[in-house]
Amino acid sequence: MAEFKVPKSHPRYWSLYYRHKIEEALEKGILAKAGTIAHGRGEAFDYLIGEKTIEPAERAMRTAVAKLLLAEHPVVSVNGNVAALVPKETIELAKSLGAKLEINLFYRTEERVKAIEKALREFDPDVEILGINPTKRIPNLESERGKVDEEGIWKADVIVVPLEDGDRTEALVAMGKFVITVDLNPLSRSARMADITIVDNIVRAYPKMIEIAEELKGKPKEELEAIVKGYDNAKTLSDVLIHMRNRLDALSKEGIWRRREI
Amino acid sequence: MAEFKVPKSHPRYWSLYYRHKIEEALEKGILAKAGTIAHGRGEAFDYLIGEKTIEPAERAMRTAVAKLLLAEHPVVSVNGNVAALVPKETIELAKSLGAKLEINLFYRTEERVKAIEKALREFDPDVEILGINPTKRIPNLESERGKVDEEGIWKADVIVVPLEDGDRTEALVAMGKFVITVDLNPLSRSARMADITIVDNIVRAYPKMIEIAEELKGKPKEELEAIVKGYDNAKTLSDVLIHMRNRLDALSKEGIWRRREI
Repeated sequence: MAEFKVPKSHPRYWSLYYRHKIEEALEKGILAKAGTIAHGRGEAFDYLIGEKTIEPAERAMRTAVAKLLLAEHPVVSVNGNVAALVPKETIELAKSLGAKLEINLFYRTEERVKAIEKALREFDPDVEILGINPTKRIPNLESERGKVDEEGIWKADVIVVPLEDGDRTEALVAMGKFVITVDLNPLSRSARMADITIVDNIVRAYPKMIEIAEELKGKPKEELEAIVKGYDNAKTLSDVLIHMRNRLDALSKEGIWRRREI
Repeated sequence: MAEFKVPKSHPRYWSLYYRHKIEEALEKGILAKAGTIAHGRGEAFDYLIGEKTIEPAERAMRTAVAKLLLAEHPVVSVNGNVAALVPKETIELAKSLGAKLEINLFYRTEERVKAIEKALREFDPDVEILGINPTKRIPNLESERGKVDEEGIWKADVIVVPLEDGDRTEALVAMGKFVITVDLNPLSRSARMADITIVDNIVRAYPKMIEIAEELKGKPKEELEAIVKGYDNAKTLSDVLIHMRNRLDALSKEGIWRRREI
């Protein structure tokens, strides 16, 4: 894979940098081809959001972190896109939350599991990673997609399943899990099925969630419960759409187009 | 590559079908990895449009076809994404318009040119394809990206460059070409630089443009000129954004989200 050589002064530097990470992950076998297309969908929605963390996303993150700190068996799930974009931050977030880390794939193959494990161990050779030899299955998902670790997702009460497909989110909700997702598309089935939906780019969301976890983790249970209580995910998603609508409205009035008589 | 086995009754059948075509094209060397990410961006914008041809797109198509029929040297350009999605329709459109067909790539390699030529010849073994041994260069583009055919884009007055990057569109405009693009992102640099921007999925746009070409191609010059005259691309793009904004507005009010007390 060619080296990434775009100068930092390029206005689209970060977008191009993460695009390169995605291409690299495809090459290393971390990512399935469909994962690259999914990244593109995310890019488009991020552009509509304005490529920054908006208030409804922060609200969702704060509630999610509080809920995870209150959980008995919190789990942070990792797939190919997550491993491509935020391997280090995933490990750090799980540590801050005292959560287990589990590799959980839509297109599960042993090669991909190994490639993801390797990508994570580059940052922490001794990190505990579940999902490598899963023995349990999520009901209502085909065999490979349903495999989960007995010590991880199987017994988890609260799980983070970022950049995930709707079927899996739905199946996990049906199992009675409390599901937190990170998804740039507020209209995706995952976004709509989850209990808490963080509509933000995971490269911004995870560092922010680590910060929030560090801030909240000493707090008394009552304070955490107060954060969680009354949270309304439908309102969060609706607020995200209103933000996008307002941005499109402003852009449509700006007249940012070249005009040439024809 | 695994066969495509999704049943036609699946609500996302066509989206999954074309996603499969993209993955297949990546495997066959027709598409660069960045092309799969670009497809994902397109999917997201198509979803916001409502996955149908909207009025501003039809207006742009009609004007584009008239302009192409009036041209002296019209050219239809083909890249990896176009060859993956609409190889047959590209050939038919060029024929209906009496336009030349030229392979023109962002990440040009001889292997990719050959793979695209092969994909096109599957539908018409004898079709004339330019851009295989290009001898001219677009000013202000690096060497591989700038290569064009003397008989094609080099001498063209009106060109269709669908699913194209902003740099190339800008360089072609700077050469004095009349540029028509097909792009699902109304905010992309390509969309903003082109003379006519068709904001539609190319799998819907090309069949529709073939129909329009068949309808218009016998018409007198004056009638075609009347269609072109007064067309306002900035207005078209603004109308597309207003359509998207209204859709987001409606969706934000619909309350399509699952509600669960937490």
